[in-house]
Amino acid sequence: MQTRQLCSTVRSSGSGDGELELSLREIDLPAPGPEEVLIRVEAAPINPSDLGLLFGPADMSSAEASGEGAGRSIRAPIPEKLLPTVAARLGQTLPAGNEGAGVVVEAGADAADLQGRTVALLGGEMYADYRIAKAKQCLLLPEGTTPEQGASCFVNPLTALGMVETMKLEGHSALVHTAAASNLGQMLVKICQADGVPLVNIVRRDEQVTLLKELGAEYVCNSSDPDFMAQLTDALAATKATLGFDATGGGELAGQILGAMEAAASRDAGAFSRYGSTVHKQVYIYGGLDRSPTTLKRNFGMAWGLGGWLLPPFLARIGQDAAQALRERVAREITTTFASHYTDRISLTETLDPSILAAYGRMATGAKYLVCPHSG
Amino acid sequence: MQTRQLCSTVRSSGSGDGELELSLREIDLPAPGPEEVLIRVEAAPINPSDLGLLFGPADMSSAEASGEGAGRSIRAPIPEKLLPTVAARLGQTLPAGNEGAGVVVEAGADAADLQGRTVALLGGEMYADYRIAKAKQCLLLPEGTTPEQGASCFVNPLTALGMVETMKLEGHSALVHTAAASNLGQMLVKICQADGVPLVNIVRRDEQVTLLKELGAEYVCNSSDPDFMAQLTDALAATKATLGFDATGGGELAGQILGAMEAAASRDAGAFSRYGSTVHKQVYIYGGLDRSPTTLKRNFGMAWGLGGWLLPPFLARIGQDAAQALRERVAREITTTFASHYTDRISLTETLDPSILAAYGRMATGAKYLVCPHSG
Repeated sequence: MQTRQLCSTVRSSGSGDGELELSLREIDLPAPGPEEVLIRVEAAPINPSDLGLLFGPADMSSAEASGEGAGRSIRAPIPEKLLPTVAARLGQTLPAGNEGAGVVVEAGADAADLQGRTVALLGGEMYADYRIAKAKQCLLLPEGTTPEQGASCFVNPLTALGMVETMKLEGHSALVHTAAASNLGQMLVKICQADGVPLVNIVRRDEQVTLLKELGAEYVCNSSDPDFMAQLTDALAATKATLGFDATGGGELAGQILGAMEAAASRDAGAFSRYGSTVHKQVYIYGGLDRSPTTLKRNFGMAWGLGGWLLPPFLARIGQDAAQALRERVAREITTTFASHYTDRISLTETLDPSILAAYGRMATGAKYLVCPHSG
Repeated sequence: MQTRQLCSTVRSSGSGDGELELSLREIDLPAPGPEEVLIRVEAAPINPSDLGLLFGPADMSSAEASGEGAGRSIRAPIPEKLLPTVAARLGQTLPAGNEGAGVVVEAGADAADLQGRTVALLGGEMYADYRIAKAKQCLLLPEGTTPEQGASCFVNPLTALGMVETMKLEGHSALVHTAAASNLGQMLVKICQADGVPLVNIVRRDEQVTLLKELGAEYVCNSSDPDFMAQLTDALAATKATLGFDATGGGELAGQILGAMEAAASRDAGAFSRYGSTVHKQVYIYGGLDRSPTTLKRNFGMAWGLGGWLLPPFLARIGQDAAQALRERVAREITTTFASHYTDRISLTETLDPSILAAYGRMATGAKYLVCPHSG
């Protein structure tokens, strides 16, 4: 069985700079082993984490296309000073696509129950016509679920569930979330409603406020409003949220959240403490939509933390059984709580079209692309 | 018994701005109770944390003195926008001086063994001629120890010991420390030598490199050197330090440490990981020598944390017995490991001298003032 795979390769050029190449590689797949299945990939989303692998630190605004059809490729320069950040992948051709869904078209002897079923998979190499997978890695979707409905079963749903689980593990009782109108943010609104967790949503535009209010969100703060900090402090005082998840990473937002948490905590404070409130305030950065530096004014006392949050170590932390329970909840609620919305569907060939690439590379909240390998 | 106390008061003025006043208050002390002692305070250091209480957010460059002798006071304006940060202390006259040492001149019936002994005390109100204290709060110093030798038994020694204990508690095996030529930094060098803990010292001047090398420090990096980041990365690779304590707080230093830790960890890394190394890198900010915002370039993957670190919650975390063991180590080694050095000794009256106040308020590494109440 032949398949195309969308791949990303980083090379150092003679001049000291580097070059990134995106291309469709054609490879032969073996027949699936006894515990394996062959999946015809029907739908795979482009998440920000996929763009990290696809684009690396390349300057995509200078990308150029060459070739046509199966031979088309995209090349973009990597500035010399950023090349060390990808030293470990130099010369390697890496297939992309963290997650997706498709139909099992061939099953090994011990996986015959999956024949013809629609399954979702996390594990890379999903921007491809076909993929071999271990049967036990596949998440079986309920009958009637389409591959498109099941394409985003892992990254966003498990991250949203992970935020609530982290809240419980670390002794907080309410959450703050930025970029809250994203697919992930909408899932989090629904999870928190179902689980009774107070949630403060931060968005940047009025129509995003409307969208989340229509979903039933109680607290939605617009960071573009002049009274944003007052809105946020009131919402944090009402919910007592002391844990935030920030998808943007850069700029002042993470520090503003900590500052508003401190101001909210100080409303309850008794005697003056020169070190600020003793309430521990935590923000985790789980994305990098804003690549500018993070700036903290440190107007939030001494009881605070900021850190990175990533799904795989979180899943390792809670253990296999707890992680599997989360996955099964996603499968059960994939068309309700965990429903995703896509701006556009593109074929494998179209991923290498410069104008389409510029669109899916923008990572704007509310703009989400789905790769449908067999559509083009 | 009458005593003077150096006090700080914040008031809101009619115009919306605020005002800070420093003054010597005269109060009557009662006779010590059965479990109490009366200490004649002989020496109390001015730590950065004392300046927080003394100066608050006032603009001390605009401070003005009035009155003479016992009636002298210092007034400085507080900008209107900073006044909310001290709302909880408005109108309160707060005695200052976190720690110090002196001689027990009167002891209650159940504390007679302390009569005439030199003791150290943490608990505030130490910029005073005399202070009443519970006997069990006093740290009895070894015979022959002077009050000046014992003046700084708590804040710096316990913070330095707390860094090593935190390292063990959180699973790290080596440390990084900034402002490393300070009294605290020199203690940490000696503790780490005695306890076999690899330590990377960061200083800003060549003479501080020399000072620490003379103490036997192995790794000293000068942040003013053009190759600072290379020095630091080499030292972190050699020591495998993944925990840092930063006294400065502001600027890029905390982020530079995390970035160098990541670069050091990547030297050992096997296959490329798009999220950076999986080694957890942590920096705690325990001071605010640089009040500018903290800036993070986030070139250190996703396995990182930054947070505030404060002595009292640390002591609460390890529990009373462990904390007492640390205190007793300090008392035993107060003239060796935990010896402090002072730039100048000033009287209570001199704390209100504008030119002296400007000097002790600078918080420069290596400039340390000792208040000797009875010297003036």
